[in-house]
Amino acid sequence: MKILIKNAKVLTMSGEPIERKEIGIENDRFTFVGNAPEGYEADIVIDGEGHIAMPGIVNAHTHSSMSLLRNYADDLPFWEWLTEKVWPVEEKMGPEEVYWGTMLSNAEMIRSGITAYADMYFYSAETAKASLEAGLRCSIAQGLIGSSDKDKEKLEATRQLYREWHMTGDGLITVMAGPHAPYTCDDAFLTKVIELCAELNLPIHTHLSESEKEVKDSLEKHGRSPIQHMNHLGLFKQHTLAAHCVHLRDEDFEILRENQVHVVHNPSSNLKLGNGISPVSRLLLSGVNVSIGTDGSCSNNNLNMFEEIHLAALLAKGSTRDPAVLPAYQALEMATKNGAAALNLGSETGKIQTGMKADVILVDLEQPHLYPHYQLDASLVYSAQASDVRTVIVNGKIVMEKGELKTIDLEKTYYEIKRITNKLSN
Amino acid sequence: MKILIKNAKVLTMSGEPIERKEIGIENDRFTFVGNAPEGYEADIVIDGEGHIAMPGIVNAHTHSSMSLLRNYADDLPFWEWLTEKVWPVEEKMGPEEVYWGTMLSNAEMIRSGITAYADMYFYSAETAKASLEAGLRCSIAQGLIGSSDKDKEKLEATRQLYREWHMTGDGLITVMAGPHAPYTCDDAFLTKVIELCAELNLPIHTHLSESEKEVKDSLEKHGRSPIQHMNHLGLFKQHTLAAHCVHLRDEDFEILRENQVHVVHNPSSNLKLGNGISPVSRLLLSGVNVSIGTDGSCSNNNLNMFEEIHLAALLAKGSTRDPAVLPAYQALEMATKNGAAALNLGSETGKIQTGMKADVILVDLEQPHLYPHYQLDASLVYSAQASDVRTVIVNGKIVMEKGELKTIDLEKTYYEIKRITNKLSN
Repeated sequence: MKILIKNAKVLTMSGEPIERKEIGIENDRFTFVGNAPEGYEADIVIDGEGHIAMPGIVNAHTHSSMSLLRNYADDLPFWEWLTEKVWPVEEKMGPEEVYWGTMLSNAEMIRSGITAYADMYFYSAETAKASLEAGLRCSIAQGLIGSSDKDKEKLEATRQLYREWHMTGDGLITVMAGPHAPYTCDDAFLTKVIELCAELNLPIHTHLSESEKEVKDSLEKHGRSPIQHMNHLGLFKQHTLAAHCVHLRDEDFEILRENQVHVVHNPSSNLKLGNGISPVSRLLLSGVNVSIGTDGSCSNNNLNMFEEIHLAALLAKGSTRDPAVLPAYQALEMATKNGAAALNLGSETGKIQTGMKADVILVDLEQPHLYPHYQLDASLVYSAQASDVRTVIVNGKIVMEKGELKTIDLEKTYYEIKRITNKLSN
Repeated sequence: MKILIKNAKVLTMSGEPIERKEIGIENDRFTFVGNAPEGYEADIVIDGEGHIAMPGIVNAHTHSSMSLLRNYADDLPFWEWLTEKVWPVEEKMGPEEVYWGTMLSNAEMIRSGITAYADMYFYSAETAKASLEAGLRCSIAQGLIGSSDKDKEKLEATRQLYREWHMTGDGLITVMAGPHAPYTCDDAFLTKVIELCAELNLPIHTHLSESEKEVKDSLEKHGRSPIQHMNHLGLFKQHTLAAHCVHLRDEDFEILRENQVHVVHNPSSNLKLGNGISPVSRLLLSGVNVSIGTDGSCSNNNLNMFEEIHLAALLAKGSTRDPAVLPAYQALEMATKNGAAALNLGSETGKIQTGMKADVILVDLEQPHLYPHYQLDASLVYSAQASDVRTVIVNGKIVMEKGELKTIDLEKTYYEIKRITNKLSN
């Protein structure tokens, strides 16, 4: 299958300015970016007039099934929210719930231009199934909480997930290990997780230094910050995707840089749960790869990466009191190629470049909030909305065309969500 | 003309829960909220099934014509941005530019559910004209900068604006005086502005305590904070709408409360220009009326109040480290009735209530990012997007129906914006 996108202004994220280019796709990869070869004939021609074509957006940290808990419990103190609201509902959730929660989130993510995401939750095989059906690129990680008596079983489940799902769906699905956080996994358990990852060459998806309390407790218990402690245990010898990293100590920056830890910034969630603002401009200046994630829609409460990109740029300026930090293009890097690198897919996606996987979206510039058309990278970061995304291609397959989802039955999904949430909330 | 909205879940902002109600509109006012009288016949019946009906959103501080400078200059140090980029273009702007800049912003505002806004700029009569054509409620204020030799002329222009435009268009247009800021108006000029306002009973629209530098300079020059100094001059004897109020000293809170100053929070702009975060939860706790505004789209860069509402709630939680502050319903109050009060229209709009002006919008709940339907006030604040607004009624007149603008020719507006910005940027 050959697709030609013509007349679009193209943001390749390879450093060139945004300008009119033609994009060729054959099967799952870009075959040219620039001018189509003479006499080129495509099976499908997409007219990108009035649109920006850009790499698909990477949501580098989420819990997609938590859509089932969206707007279920808000504006509560953190521990009340978690223990009295979230956990009791999660206890009732099985594979079916995770499947449909993921499917709802997949619809939302495709509609807002996300083509790849990193997920951590439970029943992760269901997340993989739903993502394959939706045609989304997904890195799954089964959340691991270390309790000594079930250690073996949990590690075995991750091994099985890896065997059954890694690189399935023409590489759409990849697998990571998901040790939840330093405060929910003891050292002995973490050591076993690290051993497993070394054996399978498995990347790690975890939460790190999200709250002030986490850092304080770690310093009291270990005499080390969570990041120092994870380094001490050897976690960072594996490719590590570390969500949040809000509360950092001076020594943490160098550890993150030296070990090439991939930090995921979750601006909305960090604000909404009262955790604060991650020092991302300092992280970026320190040479750390920082990407962006929505976190789950129970603490956000959406999976709208355009909102997160905008917020990432604005919070960096506001918190440093410097309007020049984190300029638009850098925010777009965070949401595309940096995110791809965090998912361990930096050589495969995150740019529009010949030979890379064809993950590309079209953003409609013919909107009042996008006029006039001056600096288009600024338009994308400061003015664009998720609803401006019209067409989404993942792995060379059109999953949304002119706003219409091609792989997800939205009415059926709404029906199942209503049925499931009626059951869960009673 | 009689309009009946049926089957919608209604957020009245009068304190009742969100539930199914019928809404009657006759000419410019709500005639019932609850059940239609038996045998009631309307000229137009709007089916609100699957929608929330809520009061039109009030954008309490903007410079609508600055849409012409959207994404023209970003990520620059503040003074470079203002003096080298913004001012040179503004110098080339005349009445025609202001008219079309306003029209573009009106299209954007209607599409995102804004039914009323407070504007400060120049050639304000053009803003009034465009708003009347668009059918939007607008409070205009001609920006005043105090230079002694032209004082009389400037005050005379505001007097004329008041005579010609106040309460025109069945009350859609109201007029305020617009002394720009304490640092751009000297004391003698401000005193004359205050005298004029007292004579005409004219409310004031100004900028206050936006930057750290403004407060520092005021303390050095007057030995008083900008808010103390304005109080000292007697500004607050008039109804005052004060935009920003980011950098407040302990004594400012009581002055603002005591004088019933209406503070407008501009979260995106304050972050983007590197000014920081206004302590809005403390202002609200102090008993100050706080509303929300987008500021101009040159420092935002959009007029998307759903984004500002979301951000207002999130920033309050993040900056106080308390997820329970500024709950969803309070954020909605800020964006509706508090904004109406700031525009001196608290008895006319900001709620869906019998006898009040019929400013109402319909928000489509049938969106993946709004499922499931739990707490609908949280849905509106944390999950909804501007593009979910489908129908907008201002003063009893439908200005957008199912996403289609009824009063603005979008193609013509785009054409004029292209023509004007080509001229301005060369």
